[in-house]
Amino acid sequence: MKTPWKSDKWFTSPWNFLDETTKDWNFASKIKLHDVSLRDGEQQAGLIFNKDEKIALAEKLAEVGIHRIEAGMPAVSKQDEEAIKEIVKRNLGPEIFAFARCMKEDVKKAADTGVKGIIVEIPSSEHIIKYAYQWPLEKAIELSIEATQYAKELGLYTVFFPIDMSRADMNWVLDLVERVATEGHMDALAVVDTFGGLNPHAIPYLIKKTKERIDKPIEVHFHDDYGLGAANTLMALAAGADVAHTTISAIGERAGNAAYEDVAMALLTMYGIDIGLNYEKIYGTAKFLRDISGLQIRQNRGITGDNLNDIESGIVSAWYYNVKDVAPLELVPYLPSLTGHPDSDVVIGKFSGVPTVDIWAERLGLKVDNDEQKMEIVQKIKDKAYEKKGLLTPEEFAEIVKEVVR
Amino acid sequence: MKTPWKSDKWFTSPWNFLDETTKDWNFASKIKLHDVSLRDGEQQAGLIFNKDEKIALAEKLAEVGIHRIEAGMPAVSKQDEEAIKEIVKRNLGPEIFAFARCMKEDVKKAADTGVKGIIVEIPSSEHIIKYAYQWPLEKAIELSIEATQYAKELGLYTVFFPIDMSRADMNWVLDLVERVATEGHMDALAVVDTFGGLNPHAIPYLIKKTKERIDKPIEVHFHDDYGLGAANTLMALAAGADVAHTTISAIGERAGNAAYEDVAMALLTMYGIDIGLNYEKIYGTAKFLRDISGLQIRQNRGITGDNLNDIESGIVSAWYYNVKDVAPLELVPYLPSLTGHPDSDVVIGKFSGVPTVDIWAERLGLKVDNDEQKMEIVQKIKDKAYEKKGLLTPEEFAEIVKEVVR
Repeated sequence: MKTPWKSDKWFTSPWNFLDETTKDWNFASKIKLHDVSLRDGEQQAGLIFNKDEKIALAEKLAEVGIHRIEAGMPAVSKQDEEAIKEIVKRNLGPEIFAFARCMKEDVKKAADTGVKGIIVEIPSSEHIIKYAYQWPLEKAIELSIEATQYAKELGLYTVFFPIDMSRADMNWVLDLVERVATEGHMDALAVVDTFGGLNPHAIPYLIKKTKERIDKPIEVHFHDDYGLGAANTLMALAAGADVAHTTISAIGERAGNAAYEDVAMALLTMYGIDIGLNYEKIYGTAKFLRDISGLQIRQNRGITGDNLNDIESGIVSAWYYNVKDVAPLELVPYLPSLTGHPDSDVVIGKFSGVPTVDIWAERLGLKVDNDEQKMEIVQKIKDKAYEKKGLLTPEEFAEIVKEVVR
Repeated sequence: MKTPWKSDKWFTSPWNFLDETTKDWNFASKIKLHDVSLRDGEQQAGLIFNKDEKIALAEKLAEVGIHRIEAGMPAVSKQDEEAIKEIVKRNLGPEIFAFARCMKEDVKKAADTGVKGIIVEIPSSEHIIKYAYQWPLEKAIELSIEATQYAKELGLYTVFFPIDMSRADMNWVLDLVERVATEGHMDALAVVDTFGGLNPHAIPYLIKKTKERIDKPIEVHFHDDYGLGAANTLMALAAGADVAHTTISAIGERAGNAAYEDVAMALLTMYGIDIGLNYEKIYGTAKFLRDISGLQIRQNRGITGDNLNDIESGIVSAWYYNVKDVAPLELVPYLPSLTGHPDSDVVIGKFSGVPTVDIWAERLGLKVDNDEQKMEIVQKIKDKAYEKKGLLTPEEFAEIVKEVVR
C-alpha cells in the first residue's frame, strides 16, 4: 500500500509513516494477541463470568480472530476448571492457555484441562518477594524452577510471568529470569508491568535489552493505571515484542490491562500492520461483554463506545451534511463499519446549529421556510436541551418545528 | 530527588529514568495544562452543563490548580456566554480563554466576555476545507487572517488552532500556518490531531519540526480515538511542547480528549515533573463531573475509577494483608490518598481466598477455628458470588462464617 495512512476504510495521519517516525520500528513478522480477559480480566473487582459466559466469550474472541486465549486459572473454582476444559474441547481456533502460580498443583491442574500452554507467575522484584510474599528469595526461585520444570514434563508451552518485573533492577531481574530459565524451563518470557508504572519512553530500550539477554520470544503484559496500557503495548511491539497480552475493553486486575481494540486498530490504521483479525466483530464483542457483566465505559470511548459516532456540534453536523456521501472519512479516522459500529449520525442537542435543522427537517419531511425560522428552531432546541439536560428526540424536534412554522 | 521513581507516595519503574529512556527528553521548563472540558468536553454528544455547573466545574479546576481554562464558545448559547463572563469575574486563578471559529463576530463575542486569550480555529487540511467546508482555500486563509488580526486588535492572547492539521502534509500546513501568522496574528500554535490519528512514534519529530519552523510556544490538542490521547500528549511534552490541552476524565468531541489525570499523574510519578497541581483534588473532581453529567467510566479506570483500589483476588489479598502497614506501595503505583481516592480495600467475591477470610473475620471479630473451615468458607463465598453474580456484602460473609463455624 502506497499510502498506509489512507485506504477506503481509514484515514489517519501521513506523519505516522515519515522516515523519522518509522526509523526505529522493528516489528516482529508475526504478532500475536494473547487475550487475558477470562483470567486477569475477570480478576477486576466485581466482575464475574459463569462457565457459560466464559465459553461464550471464548467463542466471541475466536470470531474476532484473537490468536490465543488465556482461559482462566483452574485453581480459582470448579466452574473455571470446567470452563477451561470445555473451551479446549470446542477447538475454537485460538491456542488455549491457562494461568498458574508457581506451584506444582497449579501446573498439574492446568495440564489436566488439556490446554496447550501455561503462564507461570513468578514473583520477581526483591521487595515484592520480601514484603508481599514474605518469602526468602531462594524460595521464590526454587518454586519457580520446580513449577516450570514440571510444566515442561507435562508438555506445556511455558511462559514465564515475572510479577512486578518492571519495579526490579533490570539486570538483577534478567539474571533471575536466566537462572530460572536455565535450571527450570521457559519457552517465552512475558515482560510484566504489574502496576502499570512504565512510561512509554522506557519501553523501547527495555524490549531491546531483554531481547539481547533472553533468546526467546518476548511477550508483554501491561496494565492501565495511567491509561497507557495500549500505548505501551504499541511501543513494545514496535520494538520487537512478539506477543501482546490484552483484554476486551481493558478489563483487568486493579486499573485493567491494555485494550486489544486500541492495539489492533492502531496497528492496522496507524502502523500499516494487519494482524489478521475480523475487525468488524470488535464493537459487537465489546457490547456483548458489557451486556453480560455490567461493565461500564465512557459512552464515547474510542472504538467501543455506543455514542462514539453521534455528532452533536453544529460545526461537525455541517461537515457531516457535506461529506457523508462523497468523503465520509473527513468525519472519522476510520469508517464505523470497519469495527461493526453503527454509522455516524447527527443528534439534536445544545450544540446543534442550522445544519442540524436542515438534516433533521429533511429526514422527517418537515418544511422550514427561511433562515429566521431555522435560527428560532435552533434557539428552541438549545432551550429544550438545557431544560431536559440531554439530547432531544426526533419527536421533540418535530414539535419545535411545528411551533415555529405555522 | 535521587530516586524519582520512588518516593513515600509513589513507586513506579526505575527503568523510567535510565539514561536510554531519558536521553531525548526535552521538557519545557514550565508546562501548562489548558483544560477544554467546558468547550470540547461538552461537545461530547449528550453531555450538557448549565451555567451554574460550568461555574462549579471552573471552581473545581481552579482548586486542582489547572493553569488555564477554555471556558466555552460564546456563540453556542446565551448561557455559555454568561457562564464565561461569570467565570472571568470570579477571578479563580487560572487564565481564562474562549473558543472562536475564524469569524470576526465570534472573536468579538469572546472579547466581550473579558477573557485573556482566545483559541481561533482554522481549517487546515486541503481536503477538509474542500469537502467539509466546501470553501476555496483562499477563503479559509483570508478568514483566518482577518479573525486573528482582529483578536490582536482586541488585545487577546491568540492561539491558532488548525483543524485536522495532522492529516495535512506537514510542510504544506506549516507554510499555511506561517502565512496566516505573518499576515494575521499568532501568539502560540496548537498542534491539533482532530481525529486522533497520530501514533505515539510520530509525535517527537512532529514537535521538533514544528518548533524549528514556528518560533512560538507550541500547544498540543490530541483526541482519544485509539485510547492514545494521554500517551501522545506525554510524547509531545517530552519533545518540548509548552501547553497541553486536556479534559477531566477524557470527555470531548467524538472519542474525547486527553485526560489530564493521566498526563499529570504520569508526569509526577513517571517523569519526575511536578506541574504544581493539588493532586489530592483529582479523584473528587472526576467524581463531581460524573455526578452532574451522568458520564460513565470503566469502574476500575486508572486514577479516577471508583473501584480502582478494591482488591478481590486471593493472591493480592494476601499481599494486602502482609504489606498494608509496612510497605503499602507494594500494592499500587501510588498511594490512593495522593489523588484523594479511598484507600485500597479487600472485597469479597469469586476470586477470594484464605487471606480474604482472615482479613474479614478479623475485621468483624469472627473466630474461624482451622484451615479446613477457612477452605469451606472460601468455597461458599465463591458459590454465593456465582449465585448473585457479584461481590458479597460483609453481612453475607458473616452468615457464611456462622454456617461453617458452629
